[in-house]
Parts: sequence; structure tokens; C-alpha cells
Amino acid sequence: MSIRVGIVGISGFGGGEAMRLLANHPFFELVYAAGEGSAGSRLVDRFPGVPAKLADLVIEKWEPAALPKLDLLFASLPTGASAEALARVPRDVKIVDIGGDHRYAEGWAYGLADVWPAQIEGRTRVANPGCFPAATLTALAPLLANKLIEPGNIVIDAKTGISGAGRGGGGTFGYAESNENLAPYSLLAHVHMPEMARTIERLSGGSAAGLVFTPHLVPMTRGLLATIYCRGQATTEQCLEAARRFYAGRAFVRVSEKPPQTKWATGSNLAFVSYAADPERNLVIALGVVDNLGKGAAGQAVQNANLICGLPETAGLDGAPVWP
Amino acid sequence: MSIRVGIVGISGFGGGEAMRLLANHPFFELVYAAGEGSAGSRLVDRFPGVPAKLADLVIEKWEPAALPKLDLLFASLPTGASAEALARVPRDVKIVDIGGDHRYAEGWAYGLADVWPAQIEGRTRVANPGCFPAATLTALAPLLANKLIEPGNIVIDAKTGISGAGRGGGGTFGYAESNENLAPYSLLAHVHMPEMARTIERLSGGSAAGLVFTPHLVPMTRGLLATIYCRGQATTEQCLEAARRFYAGRAFVRVSEKPPQTKWATGSNLAFVSYAADPERNLVIALGVVDNLGKGAAGQAVQNANLICGLPETAGLDGAPVWP
Amino acid sequence: MSIRVGIVGISGFGGGEAMRLLANHPFFELVYAAGEGSAGSRLVDRFPGVPAKLADLVIEKWEPAALPKLDLLFASLPTGASAEALARVPRDVKIVDIGGDHRYAEGWAYGLADVWPAQIEGRTRVANPGCFPAATLTALAPLLANKLIEPGNIVIDAKTGISGAGRGGGGTFGYAESNENLAPYSLLAHVHMPEMARTIERLSGGSAAGLVFTPHLVPMTRGLLATIYCRGQATTEQCLEAARRFYAGRAFVRVSEKPPQTKWATGSNLAFVSYAADPERNLVIALGVVDNLGKGAAGQAVQNANLICGLPETAGLDGAPVWP
Amino acid sequence: MSIRVGIVGISGFGGGEAMRLLANHPFFELVYAAGEGSAGSRLVDRFPGVPAKLADLVIEKWEPAALPKLDLLFASLPTGASAEALARVPRDVKIVDIGGDHRYAEGWAYGLADVWPAQIEGRTRVANPGCFPAATLTALAPLLANKLIEPGNIVIDAKTGISGAGRGGGGTFGYAESNENLAPYSLLAHVHMPEMARTIERLSGGSAAGLVFTPHLVPMTRGLLATIYCRGQATTEQCLEAARRFYAGRAFVRVSEKPPQTKWATGSNLAFVSYAADPERNLVIALGVVDNLGKGAAGQAVQNANLICGLPETAGLDGAPVWP
Repeated sequence: MSIRVGIVGISGFGGGEAMRLLANHPFFELVYAAGEGSAGSRLVDRFPGVPAKLADLVIEKWEPAALPKLDLLFASLPTGASAEALARVPRDVKIVDIGGDHRYAEGWAYGLADVWPAQIEGRTRVANPGCFPAATLTALAPLLANKLIEPGNIVIDAKTGISGAGRGGGGTFGYAESNENLAPYSLLAHVHMPEMARTIERLSGGSAAGLVFTPHLVPMTRGLLATIYCRGQATTEQCLEAARRFYAGRAFVRVSEKPPQTKWATGSNLAFVSYAADPERNLVIALGVVDNLGKGAAGQAVQNANLICGLPETAGLDGAPVWP
Repeated sequence: MSIRVGIVGISGFGGGEAMRLLANHPFFELVYAAGEGSAGSRLVDRFPGVPAKLADLVIEKWEPAALPKLDLLFASLPTGASAEALARVPRDVKIVDIGGDHRYAEGWAYGLADVWPAQIEGRTRVANPGCFPAATLTALAPLLANKLIEPGNIVIDAKTGISGAGRGGGGTFGYAESNENLAPYSLLAHVHMPEMARTIERLSGGSAAGLVFTPHLVPMTRGLLATIYCRGQATTEQCLEAARRFYAGRAFVRVSEKPPQTKWATGSNLAFVSYAADPERNLVIALGVVDNLGKGAAGQAVQNANLICGLPETAGLDGAPVWP
Repeated sequence: MSIRVGIVGISGFGGGEAMRLLANHPFFELVYAAGEGSAGSRLVDRFPGVPAKLADLVIEKWEPAALPKLDLLFASLPTGASAEALARVPRDVKIVDIGGDHRYAEGWAYGLADVWPAQIEGRTRVANPGCFPAATLTALAPLLANKLIEPGNIVIDAKTGISGAGRGGGGTFGYAESNENLAPYSLLAHVHMPEMARTIERLSGGSAAGLVFTPHLVPMTRGLLATIYCRGQATTEQCLEAARRFYAGRAFVRVSEKPPQTKWATGSNLAFVSYAADPERNLVIALGVVDNLGKGAAGQAVQNANLICGLPETAGLDGAPVWP
Repeated sequence: MSIRVGIVGISGFGGGEAMRLLANHPFFELVYAAGEGSAGSRLVDRFPGVPAKLADLVIEKWEPAALPKLDLLFASLPTGASAEALARVPRDVKIVDIGGDHRYAEGWAYGLADVWPAQIEGRTRVANPGCFPAATLTALAPLLANKLIEPGNIVIDAKTGISGAGRGGGGTFGYAESNENLAPYSLLAHVHMPEMARTIERLSGGSAAGLVFTPHLVPMTRGLLATIYCRGQATTEQCLEAARRFYAGRAFVRVSEKPPQTKWATGSNLAFVSYAADPERNLVIALGVVDNLGKGAAGQAVQNANLICGLPETAGLDGAPVWP
């Protein structure tokens, strides 16, 4: 079986990572790639190590009304750029939107794939979670589902590699400026907040979420850690056990007794979660680690695509992390 | 005037940075250096770019009973290694202990120099704060002194460059293992906790401190950021204004409206503090940035030495940060 | 078909990368792992993201006389540690030695797989080339085979990521010491010299090789570039064309018109070669890029294993490079 | 004595480093700063850690005809941008041009300050060498002056940190693209070639230079190493001794028996040179290390300014390198 897939936004990091994963996927065949900056180039011109079978695929200018025959489209466009355009894609083309425009939009499933796979299967429009939500919500879901923490009082201190800021970046994310530099940003104002609040409410059965969220840029290419401070009476072991049960049989979430490190996940679709609690102080610390381009973007997108196409969830995603 | 100074622990990063600062100090003359791993070497063998006047100084084996004539000693020894040894240093040799053994020890001033300079002047034994406390307490002091936050409910999420873990480090902090890796550690158990709690109580006039502290190792050489989540009703502007007043006339603390980044401080003795608050949510976020080897170790040590020797506080410390 | 394979030296970077590649290999089944520092641990304790099927494999203490039933063994031991030990491995166990002890040793094929695949097929003992030779010889082979350069006058300026120096490394390769540091080493004395000289003579039909070789450590985890200065009258296009013909139909060598960059190969078994020549000055510059742990170690080892087992050469090696 | 100085190009890395050095200079007073991207900002807006005395200096739009009263101007403009503009600066304003437009231009001294200080003293227009020439020529000068190598056959393999490529850089020098990436560029075509050839001819008494020069971008912020392959009959010790004599009494050049590493020079105006030779093979390898923003740009510029102003050559330049 061969499923014809396309990627729009191939010039960006998320689109590029999707291409890497599709290059080795047993069922998906990449037949279309579109991108703003790279239209007219062949894939090999942009990705010199691309497998030979994809080398000569020419990157198209993105025009949703003029797609070739496709079964599935991955969209990885800047926020604001996909809402109108994806509406023009024919209904029989399934879409996984890696970008931010369709999270909790009408008609779109929210693709937190390790938590709600059954609600993604059979859908044709899936909005991939943001990278920060992917790490945060995967760590919090077992606690919220088991009412081990209060949804109204959660502090999320998150740290991401710089690929999370997108390509280029001019003077702001140039190598010399960013190397050896740790930078907090968007205090009390990050665009991922509503998505996290809404999902936390859903996970906690409707209780109101109260969040503080502070993202930081870390001088590394990939990797994302959320350190999450919660109120709750559970012990460390109760939290770990709740997570083990919650994710029993799930392929991509690893429950760790040791604090996870970002490099454990590099290049993979894995998420690592861990917990440290002090019931006397009404404190639970949850930790979530992902590769921001893996589970935080293209890895989760392929997982969602597998689910909506009725494929094994792990198809094309069974590579071990790259270490060191 | 020339003041004869020595450094013990010259092989470590803290001792090495002290050497760099002393090399250009207008009043201190480095006449003695001791170190475990490097005894017998000349300074130039360990530090190829050391100024010519210091190049041939031979590193001694550390023996407190056999010091040359010194006015002042900087000690930068591993935790546990200095308590007994420094007791054997003659009383007329002033000591600044960069290591951890004498913080809040009997007879030692706690050298949080930007906050309590008057309590350091004239002392002969000063314990330098740890690197995490240096960033954290400098950011919190104005809030606590003005009762803008509750001392009993403070979450400190701190991130340090890897030089904070000391030299060497074998397989744990090897380049290939640490690069592209962000690692939380010592959850609920870091050695800097008591020192921070005690100082917070002192700053808040005796109220009990309640702290959560999570350190993280960031793949960069230098730099330290504390992101601190507090309860309080103040506005952002009230916090900033409190800090501007608290540090008015102080040379090394900069109050920033923008979130500070670690590279702003690299190579200097500066601390940057900033705040973001949401009174409706009873939330104050404080940010503190230092170079962990500057204000977090050797820079603050030289500042303390200036204070106890009656010198201008900024002597030898007026270099601008190295950027990029 | 399932071929039972083992790895000795699993604690090192080369052994770890072999494990990663074997985890996804369609024919090889990893049934044995041995290591010095990690004996008694399970694979998942050392590699938290290892696929579930391998997680509980216990790492053994290395004892060549007490191997389980194996078809194939990958050895990744420090130089000097494998010659005697591998002699005690039963003859019916095929061996690929990633370490340095058997290059041009009696009874061992030299595993420069992209150049001499036919001389590796059917052998039972293969010595993997070193990482520097892998990049250098792959770039030079087409030039030497076509007599476009003089074998007696070759300057190799090579740069490798720090994983090439092995794990740990104490104070020498600690993160803080190595980051932002570029270090030449082993001038006129590197251990890879004889292997390169011998292969160059073989490639040039017996002419004496004259080499200068300078390795450098670059502050990055993976990646290796050899910039090679040769004497010859060929044009750039003649060199490129010679390489295209030499590697026609070969899966892992890419001939690039643009100077290749190390990140093009990260995580893959690819080698990139390119050339720039100035016939008027009798000058040919050859460039070779590999991932030092891929084509420079474990990737080439798996390729050699495929060849000696009669498998498709690309089995388990078709992943695209990880970028960025 | 206070000498009024200005900087044009303050937004770039070279201009910013000049600002850092001037902030602590005992004789120079920075009274004017101009820059393209930052006109209208105060210095503290661009450099948050700038010393208080400079914080409120407003960056001007660059207009050579409307300078305030200045004694000295540092120009750090992109290649091509300074020739015409600097011609309009009043003759009584001394100029050190860090940019590339005036090297070997009529009326300008070539500011290779460690080699030809006497030819710089008393001049009013000095062109700073490029960063690659600074490292290369400092290493070669003693060999050429003593006729230990042939000027007609020199291969320069140079490696620089990414700040050498200037600020910003968009997709090409973004952090995620550049980290973990080593990239050769401008093969046989770099703009620094003519400057090096001309200086080599001058150093060798007029013999024709024959150069091959290959620059590489290394994933680090600062630091530059030139590894130079020459023809010559000298021994290692003869080369070292020639350099020791050549640089006897010179403050900024260190002759090292061990291969120098880039981090030895970070933040300083030092140059490290070393040599390894094999007379039997007619081979001399010369190594030159500088900080590309120090001796490779702003450090050497301040040294040149000291020379033309009749100040001690080391004024403002005696800081030890920043390590680690």
C-alpha cells in the first residue's frame, strides 16, 4: 500500500523534519513538496543528504487549489498563514496541520496523540499541538486525569532549543548572538497559553485552569524541557505509578524515575516524563522532555497521520534517538 | 599601595577567574597561588595567556601553615575541603571563601555584597554566596525588603552554564555528552537551599521562608539565570521601582525592563534583575542573571575583598561584559 | 531471516551508535552487548530512549570465551584492547572491528566499503577504517585511481567533532574546557597516518605515499571534514567527473559541486566529496565530509557487516541525515 | 590626558568590541558612536552591560561631514562602505579602519602592529589587517624574515568562529543551521588573499608569494586558527627560536611549544604562534591563534591607535583572556 503525501512548508524546520521521517516511512510516499523560499529547487538542493529516491522532487510554489492527487498533506506554515489556505484544500485530502492556526478550531481534532489516540482515528483534519504543549501536557495528563494536582495553580517553566524559533532569525537568533546565551521571553504572554489552558481543563474534567508559563531559549539546536510546579498531595511514587498506568501500552511515552534530559529524545518521537513530589508541602513537580521537532512537531504529526490513515501508530517512527 | 594576595584552588574555574581579575587589579598583587592538580607548574603553563608579570609564579601545594606573608587569601576549594584548612590560616590574613563551607558559619560575614556592603566592610572573614543564591537573592532582595512578595511561597527555577559544575567531570560533563543537552538535577535536594532560605528570612525580617528550588545544567560555559515565581500583589512597575530604589547608587546591579539574557553579564561582575507581575493573579515573576564565575563566584569575591580592605568597591571590576 | 549479532564496547560512542543502527536493522537481531563501564546495567539504563524490544538486554562483562551463540560481533574497543581478545572469539563468529588494532593485520580485510566492496564480501574478519581515513580516502580514491594527483605530496588538514576523542575525557574534553575551543593536536604524529599511507599506495598502484596530516578538535559533537591539498593538473570538473564515475551506483557517496558541510551527514552513513582545482598552479583541493560516528565508525561497520553477510549493502542504513 | 575618540559601525561585532575595549582605556574617551541599525538608541539599549559612564551616549546616524570634535575615529564598516565615506573625514582626525577598504591603499599604513610598530607610529591613517591575515602573518613573519620557508609555496588552512561572518546572517548563520556544523567556503577565492600575498612578499624581501588559502566556519563565537603548511629546511626549534627573537620584547605575541588552542586568546589582544617542522621532508607547519574580534579586529585596532597617538602600546589592552 502506498499513500500519496505532500508537505507544504518544506523550507522550515518542521517541514524538513517531516520530510526526513517520510523518507523512511513504510506506507507514505512523498510526492509533493511546497515551500516559499525554496520553490523551484530540487529537494537535494535544500537537503543534500536526502535519499536518492526523493532527490529530484522539485519544490513547488504553494497553491492549495492546484495540488496533485494527494491522500494526505502535512502543513507546516507560520502562524496565521494556514487558516485560509488550508480551507481551499479538497476535502478528500487528509490534513495534519503542524502550524498553530487550527488548534481547537471547528472541525479539527486536537492531535495530542499519546493521550487521545481514539479521538484522532478516523478524522480527516488534525491540528498538531505546539511544542511547549506537547511536553507539558504529556507530563500533566496522568496527574490531571487522576486528580493528583490542582488544575487552577500550575507554573510551567519551559526551555526550548533554538530551532523552536524557526529558521533564519536575523540578528536575533544568529549563531554568535545566541550561542552561550539563555533568554527568557514572552513573559505572561506566550501564544501557546490558551491551547494549554483548554487542554488542561479538558483533562481535568472541566475545572478551570490557572497557568503561569515562561518559555526560555536555550543555546542548543533541538530539545525541549518543561519543568512544571503543581499543587497536590501525591507522593513521587503515586505520580510515577499514575503515569505508568496512564501510558501503559503506549509506544512513545517513557516514564522515568530519574529527571529526564533533552538529549534522551533527540531525533525521535519519544516523550519522557518524570515526577518529584513532597506531599507535606503540597508540591508536585512534573517534568516533560521532547525533541521540539520530533514529538513537538513532525514526529507527532506523522503519528497523527498514522492514526487517521488506520496505520500502525509507530510506522516510520521507530528510530532510536541520536546520541550523543 | 600594594596588597599581597593569594589564591588557593587556582586549578578550578573559580580560582582561575579570580586570577584573571587580580591580574588587572589596581591594588592587589598576586604573590601566591596554590592548587591540587597543578602544584609545581608555573601559572603560564596552566593559563597560557596570563599577563607576563604573573607568568612565572609557581603554583604551590596548598599548606595553610606555610603561607608566605599575605594580606588576603581567596579560597576556592571543593565543598568540605576548606573548613578545617582555613582555620589554620593566620588570623591576620583576611579570607574570602568562594567555596561553600563558611556560609552562615560562626565568625564569617555572608558576602552578598550588593545588598549588605556595610556588614562586610571591616570584616576579616567573608563567605561568598553560591552562584544560584547570588542570582536569586539579588533579584528577590528588593521585593522582600519592601514586602512585595510572600517569603513562604517561592519557586526558583534556575539554569546554569556547565562551568558551574566544576572542572573535568568525566563522562558526565564531557563535551559530547553535555552539548545539546539540558539537564535538571538535584530536585528538592540542592545544597544551596539552606543558604537561600536563611537569607530570605533575613531579608524579610524573620518570616519563615518556603522554597522550591530546581537547578538545570544548560549547554553553555558561563551564565546563570534564576526565574523565580512568587506570590504578591505588586505591579511590574512597583517591582521595578522598588529595585531601582534598593540598588540606587550600587555599581553592579542593573534593573532591566526587558527580560535579561545571560550573555549580558558574561565576564563581568554585573547582575541584571527584572520583574513581570500580574496583581490580579497574585503573581510576581522575578528574574536574576549573573555570570556564574563573575557575580556568582570570583567577581563577587573580589568585590568582597575590596570591601574588607577599604578599597573602592569597583576596583578591578570595571570591565564591560564580553559580547558576543 | 534473523542474524544474531553482538556488540562489545557498548559503553563507548562507537558501540552506542552501532546499537542505534542495529535497533532498526531489518536482518540483524541484537542479542548480546558487553561493556566495561556498564556491565550489569540494562540497555535502557544507559540509553533511555532505546526501543522497547532491547530495553531489558543486560550488558555483560566482556569475555570472548564465553559468548552466547552469535553470527556476528561488532567490536568497538580502545586501541590495543582488541588484538588479543578478538583472537579468542570462535572462528565461526564473523567480526567487524571498529577499533584500530586490525587495520592491515594478517587475515583481516580493510573495510573501506564504498571503494572495495568486492574485497569485503565473503570475508569473516573486517577491520573498519579510522574516522579520519574514512573521510580522507573516500575523497582521494577517485583522484588516485585516475592518477589525477601525486600520491607523494598530500597535505591533509582534518577537523573532527569531539565524540571522536571518545567518552569522558576528564579535564581535557570537559564541556567548559572544550566549548568555544578549537585545538590542533598530534602534529606529525597521529596514529591514523600509516593506515592512510598504506591505502593511498594501494589506490595509486603502488607509488609511495607522502603525507602530512594535522587533526583538529572542533567544538561540536559529531562531524568530520578533511580538507586535502594535492599536486595535480586536473580541472575541478575533471575531478568531479572522476568521482561521479568512480562512485556511480554506490549508495553512500555523494559528489557535491558545492563545498560540503559536516551537518549534511549527521546521523547517516553518507560521505560527501567535492573538489576545487587550479591546473595552472598544479593544485587540487579535495574535501571529504562524514559523520565520524557514522561513515567514520558504526555506519561503515554495519555496511561492512551487510557485505560479509551477503545482505543488501544499505540494509538498516537508509535513514536521512538529521538536520538541523 | 584625554583623547576624544569615536566609533562608526558600533552595531557590528568589531565596533562593539572596540567599544568594550575603549570603555576601560586609560587615555581614550569615547564621545561619539554611529551605526546603521542602531541610530537613535543609547549605548545601553544595545549593550545592556556597558559601563554607566557610557550608558546614555546616543548612537548617531553616520555622517562623516558632521562629526563632533574628535581626535581619533575607529571605523568598522562593511567592505566597500568606508572608502568614500572616510575620505570625507577631516584630516586632523586620526583614523584606524578595521574594515577592508584601505589595506595597502595609498596614504594608509598597514597596521600589522606586532611586526611593524615603527612604521605605524606617527601615521594618521592606519588600515587594520583582516582577521585571517592577522593570525597567518603573525605566525609567518619570523619564518619569512629569517628565510626559513619559501614564500612561493604556502598553504593556509584557516578556521574562524562565526562572529567573523558578521552580525545577523539570516538563514545562513542562524544558530540552528550553524551549530554542530563546520563549513569550508570561498575556496581559491577569498577576499583576504591579496592582502596576505602582498604582506608575504614584503616580509620576504620581495620574493613572489604563492598562496593557497581555505577558510572554514567553525561552530564557536570567537577564535581563529591558521594552520599553515610551508616548504623549508628548518627544525622545529629553529622556527621557535626565530619567533622568540623576532618577538622579543613585544607584548602581545606568545611563542608556544605546544600547539595553541583558540580559547587561549579569547577576549584578549594576544596572538599565539607555534611551529612543527620536519627538515627531512622539507616541511614547516606554522600555527597562529587569535581572537578574531581581538587581535583579528578591535584589539589590534586599539593597539594601532595607541601607536599613532604615541601612547604605551598596551594601554587598555592588558586584560587576561577569558577562560573558560
